[in-house]
Amino acid sequence: MKTANDKKATVLSSRYLEHKPWLTVREDKIQLANGVIIPEYFVLEYPDWVNVLAITKDKKFLLVRQYRHGTGTTNYELCGGCVDKEDASPLVAAQRELLEETGFGKGTWRFNLKMSANPSTSNNWTYNFIAEGVEQVGKQHLDGGEDISFELLSLDEIKTLLKNNEIIQSVHACALWKYLAENHLL
Amino acid sequence: MKTANDKKATVLSSRYLEHKPWLTVREDKIQLANGVIIPEYFVLEYPDWVNVLAITKDKKFLLVRQYRHGTGTTNYELCGGCVDKEDASPLVAAQRELLEETGFGKGTWRFNLKMSANPSTSNNWTYNFIAEGVEQVGKQHLDGGEDISFELLSLDEIKTLLKNNEIIQSVHACALWKYLAENHLL
Repeated sequence: MKTANDKKATVLSSRYLEHKPWLTVREDKIQLANGVIIPEYFVLEYPDWVNVLAITKDKKFLLVRQYRHGTGTTNYELCGGCVDKEDASPLVAAQRELLEETGFGKGTWRFNLKMSANPSTSNNWTYNFIAEGVEQVGKQHLDGGEDISFELLSLDEIKTLLKNNEIIQSVHACALWKYLAENHLL
Repeated sequence: MKTANDKKATVLSSRYLEHKPWLTVREDKIQLANGVIIPEYFVLEYPDWVNVLAITKDKKFLLVRQYRHGTGTTNYELCGGCVDKEDASPLVAAQRELLEETGFGKGTWRFNLKMSANPSTSNNWTYNFIAEGVEQVGKQHLDGGEDISFELLSLDEIKTLLKNNEIIQSVHACALWKYLAENHLL
């Protein structure tokens, strides 16, 4: 097995095509390790993202429902969002997002996964945390552009959603499948 | 549990900002179900993607290594690519990609997962297949812009990579964690 970045490309030039609040596109001219030059390689720049596999004291899984306009679908998801500049760490961002979107907090938190939704097109990372023993400590506080509801689901309901391919966000599904695998829950 | 698309937004207007071979950006003005209008919602349009969890007759996992310029990293990945217009189905595309990138074919194939790398920003789907009993049937045939090597890894090596967070592509890691969970391999 290899672990080094053995095929790293060289950036020959770089410019921004778009630099809007929700759309930053960089166009790089790169040379691959094998010598091939790709004149227009587009990279989407985003802040890092976070999400949390939150479980209550009575073993319910806290999921949110949100319409996603890329796929045009409303699905069950883990609670999550962007790491803001004010957030001291991804963990703090995840705790803030959980509190804002659901009013839940406290519990015991641990890092679970650092992933890329798309390492080919996107420059950011998504951090997943597991929070066990969370409880309702306040009310939901949504931004104007958010329409999010939340539900507490049983382990059996989570398994049904996963088996029916209804948790379609790959980062979220990955965290849940990993949890089932590591805890021998299938 | 709900399954309906209960928060679907309405598209009020739509135009393309970019329409290049590897970058198509649509700008929609949408109205959420709660009435809020988002004047600039950017959707990245892509063809569907496919990848395959390929396992040889002697239970080795066939992984590829490829530099990904978004994250600037070279990682182990499942073999995969885009569904071309000429591909009769996602399955056919996955079989074509496996043959092109590794020279492996045959085996018993089945659908495993349909996921979105990012349902918020992207309009496409990624299909994952499991192919068991694949064997080398030809040589690798790469496009000019591809620099891909492949390796056969043991189950223990796969588990080590997953536990060390070295398979960072969320769709790929999800398929592997699901495989470990369903086959009770942890």
